[in-house]
Amino acid sequence: MEPIYIGIARRKRAEQLSRIPVEWQLKQLPAESVSDVRGIPRESGILSAREIEITETFDAIDLAAKIRSRTYSCYEVAVAFCKRAAIAQQLLSCLTEIFFDKALERAKELDKHLERHGLPLGPLHGVPVSLKDTENVPGYDTSCGMAGLCFRPATKASAIVLLLEKAGAVLYCKTNIPQTLMALDSHNQIWGRTLNPLNRRLTPGGSSGGESALIAMRGSLLGVGSDIGGSIRIPAMCTGVYGIKPTSLRLASHIGAEGFSIPGSHPIGISPSVGPLGTSLRSCELLLNLAIDGKLWETEPHVLFSPWRTIEPKMRQMRFLVLMTDNIVTPLPPVRRLLRETTALLKYRGHKVVVLENPPPFLKEHNAIFNRTIGFDGGNHIIDLLDSTEEAKVPCISGRLARRNPATIQQLYERYAKKEEFTINCLGLWKSADGEDFDAIIFPVAPHPTLRHDEWQYAGYTSIFNVLDWPAGAVPARNVTREDLEAPLGIETGDRWDKLNRTKLWNKKEDYLGTPLSLQIVGRKMQEEELVRAMHVVDEVLAETRDATIRDHKL
Amino acid sequence: MEPIYIGIARRKRAEQLSRIPVEWQLKQLPAESVSDVRGIPRESGILSAREIEITETFDAIDLAAKIRSRTYSCYEVAVAFCKRAAIAQQLLSCLTEIFFDKALERAKELDKHLERHGLPLGPLHGVPVSLKDTENVPGYDTSCGMAGLCFRPATKASAIVLLLEKAGAVLYCKTNIPQTLMALDSHNQIWGRTLNPLNRRLTPGGSSGGESALIAMRGSLLGVGSDIGGSIRIPAMCTGVYGIKPTSLRLASHIGAEGFSIPGSHPIGISPSVGPLGTSLRSCELLLNLAIDGKLWETEPHVLFSPWRTIEPKMRQMRFLVLMTDNIVTPLPPVRRLLRETTALLKYRGHKVVVLENPPPFLKEHNAIFNRTIGFDGGNHIIDLLDSTEEAKVPCISGRLARRNPATIQQLYERYAKKEEFTINCLGLWKSADGEDFDAIIFPVAPHPTLRHDEWQYAGYTSIFNVLDWPAGAVPARNVTREDLEAPLGIETGDRWDKLNRTKLWNKKEDYLGTPLSLQIVGRKMQEEELVRAMHVVDEVLAETRDATIRDHKL
Repeated sequence: MEPIYIGIARRKRAEQLSRIPVEWQLKQLPAESVSDVRGIPRESGILSAREIEITETFDAIDLAAKIRSRTYSCYEVAVAFCKRAAIAQQLLSCLTEIFFDKALERAKELDKHLERHGLPLGPLHGVPVSLKDTENVPGYDTSCGMAGLCFRPATKASAIVLLLEKAGAVLYCKTNIPQTLMALDSHNQIWGRTLNPLNRRLTPGGSSGGESALIAMRGSLLGVGSDIGGSIRIPAMCTGVYGIKPTSLRLASHIGAEGFSIPGSHPIGISPSVGPLGTSLRSCELLLNLAIDGKLWETEPHVLFSPWRTIEPKMRQMRFLVLMTDNIVTPLPPVRRLLRETTALLKYRGHKVVVLENPPPFLKEHNAIFNRTIGFDGGNHIIDLLDSTEEAKVPCISGRLARRNPATIQQLYERYAKKEEFTINCLGLWKSADGEDFDAIIFPVAPHPTLRHDEWQYAGYTSIFNVLDWPAGAVPARNVTREDLEAPLGIETGDRWDKLNRTKLWNKKEDYLGTPLSLQIVGRKMQEEELVRAMHVVDEVLAETRDATIRDHKL
Repeated sequence: MEPIYIGIARRKRAEQLSRIPVEWQLKQLPAESVSDVRGIPRESGILSAREIEITETFDAIDLAAKIRSRTYSCYEVAVAFCKRAAIAQQLLSCLTEIFFDKALERAKELDKHLERHGLPLGPLHGVPVSLKDTENVPGYDTSCGMAGLCFRPATKASAIVLLLEKAGAVLYCKTNIPQTLMALDSHNQIWGRTLNPLNRRLTPGGSSGGESALIAMRGSLLGVGSDIGGSIRIPAMCTGVYGIKPTSLRLASHIGAEGFSIPGSHPIGISPSVGPLGTSLRSCELLLNLAIDGKLWETEPHVLFSPWRTIEPKMRQMRFLVLMTDNIVTPLPPVRRLLRETTALLKYRGHKVVVLENPPPFLKEHNAIFNRTIGFDGGNHIIDLLDSTEEAKVPCISGRLARRNPATIQQLYERYAKKEEFTINCLGLWKSADGEDFDAIIFPVAPHPTLRHDEWQYAGYTSIFNVLDWPAGAVPARNVTREDLEAPLGIETGDRWDKLNRTKLWNKKEDYLGTPLSLQIVGRKMQEEELVRAMHVVDEVLAETRDATIRDHKL
């Protein structure tokens, strides 16, 4: 007899397919050898010229302006993005729940509203916004890639879903994640494996990998992800889009279905952050600003009152701290070269940059703290959930999930004490030797470029800022060049992750050629406003190089 | 053989006495029958007329202005308050560590600074500020009333101590607390029992009872307390002073000596709040503002970035919600009458007031949640500490401290889930039926007036806002009148605390005549600015009644 989960997965996939109109289904799928599929929507014959224009020309902010000025109707915009998302799904398996029908109805209402009142509902009036599967949309499952949570449709919308609707957004689909959410690929037994549209042999990252794939395909311009160890920033890097993980306390506190998290476990250990991924930094900023000003603190128990602050752009030079390593895994040459280049570019523009080749030794404690603070129940809750449908683990999960004993209160205190001490030490990083504070920290998103499927293991470069609960965002930089591959390796740390990085992940270095690199920009806790300002500065200096190397891929 | 702690206590008390100059010692102590001792400093012959003027005329803000205008020197102000605190100590046992010598030195330096630079160090230049024993002052114990922590002088100053010094304050003494801090009287084996200067047969409250006693004696105008269940608000009520418990995350996160708290336990369960007590509301506001703008988030791991917001005074009417009961203990007639009177006064001034005679049933869950969330280690850490010196429990602690098994992670999650659900329910209180939000909630500080020693058991009226981590302050109202005592009791809830309240605590109701009553004003999490504004409004409408009944006690 087949295990229970297989039948559930079959029914879910049939349901999903039934939600894609036949006329939006590709007549022929590209050969497996076609790696970059970003051009296929335009060649598919499914989108009109106008729909190609709508989906390929703007970011979410410009598109909203075009809708407000009546250049495009909400309805035609919704049709265009539903079509493009449908095509993306067929090429990349990036979607989970599909509600194109509701989206088109909603778009019609939004058109009527605009006609009747002359004013938009909000700054996202008519803009399609995609949602990671973890967000609750009434009537649809929040399965988080697990059979045990299928066919249990949500009854209550997530706070961020309500906010987006209030802002006029059109919600049309949810996007794929890894089984259990706890991996850096986006692969599960229900929806399969999400591929990277830049190169289908590469991972789109995880856990918000459906988002990053869909956005890079321009099947969405702006989406909602979540991040507890890198799950926004890593996928954003993998497909060269923007992504911001805010301080956990500033945004919606609940992710996942009832039954996914243990009630009451939320504020213990490491808290997830909900945040945006998008084709432009300013659209991510808009979503953050909207969500934070949505007064979630009036209804959500863990969200803190902290209205978005309007801060002035800095006229004077800004001050950056560049950390060249986390002291556990020495970044590979492409990453190190990018940090050096960016330092030079920032200095050239008059900014002050301090580079720490050897950050203080305490920094390396972050990974043990993360691993010991991420869960206290021993993983048993999730394993029980898998076992309930005899669900087999996918490859990216197999090494990550094993039953352990729940921690004791004593152990909880000990781990918190460690985390506290580490936090105090890290707060010291913000003070420069001359006593002035840095505006932002620049750090790799990962110690290597974007990897192939099921290769991504080490998330320390992102999870350190979940331990600290500092906001951090990914800014796309440039693709890996031939010169990057010829540079020498940095010093060995002796750690097993470092060994893996400089052997297995560097031995096939030719694979990295032309793959995207990003930088991580880090702010201070609860200071998303200052983080975004710093990201804009870095984004601008990266623009030139980025254009030179990424231009070819641009649609 | 005598238990170890007795010798330690003897040495500590001798040390304390040696720090009070002989010429500041009262020649004769008043008879035990003298209950109100507030007039004694003025009759003692120890203070000059000018020193009486200095200590009795101003609040901290006016005194600071007088120092800045060179009406008084820092030194003469320091001498005046050290003298008065010394007298208070002899009458009330309100002090723990005494450092008058350092204070006088510091005052001299501050005078020189003012002379040399013409500008004050900060807004508290030369103002003596008292500290609850829980704050760390290098060179002095932070014993928290336990022998096991004596003769272990602090090496590192508390964050708030550093801030106060930066603001120009003169630190001169620490104030008494209950053994282990976990009681509502301020009595321990080292420093004895603190008495209430309004009436020495009454408790000054706890755990910041040394502060409230010293301030009501005008041995201090402004002090630092802390509150994890009512420890600022209850003492403030007992002696008729102002006190504010801010959101725990906005102020210094650590209280107590090394060894008092289990490392890493801080952010689990209920977090303590550090906050001001003072003779005026505006001085409490100043201290809060100063401390919050002191950027503690740059060094303290649990303090959140949240600069003090300047908000406009509300010209329009304000909206208050009055909760007449917590559904566990029906307040006694004096308290209920005060709530009704205040409602009438606020309405008369044009404010909108909604009175809930029967708040929603969920409200009563708060007390079980508090008791189950306040500590997860089973109290064993503190009991071990007592046992280490064979320390006997004082009466107010004896019913409160017993070894239990530490909770399991499962139990921790369950309790957090309860707390989360309760928080969501309570957030709904802020919305009025017409959809507009309330500006503040008005609630009793306690279901009874100020009690005699060792009678205070139920802290539910204050601890509910530690569960919710909402800021709340006590505003002195008026004294209990004859009419209060003749009003009928409210409805029985059936709870054992309610029974105790309406029998044991009401049977001797004549004792309450002339004792102080306060109101608790409650704000929204992280919105101390709005709370203080609401407190000012209530303070103004109470001013008339307060003057009529309290005037006789005024110095």
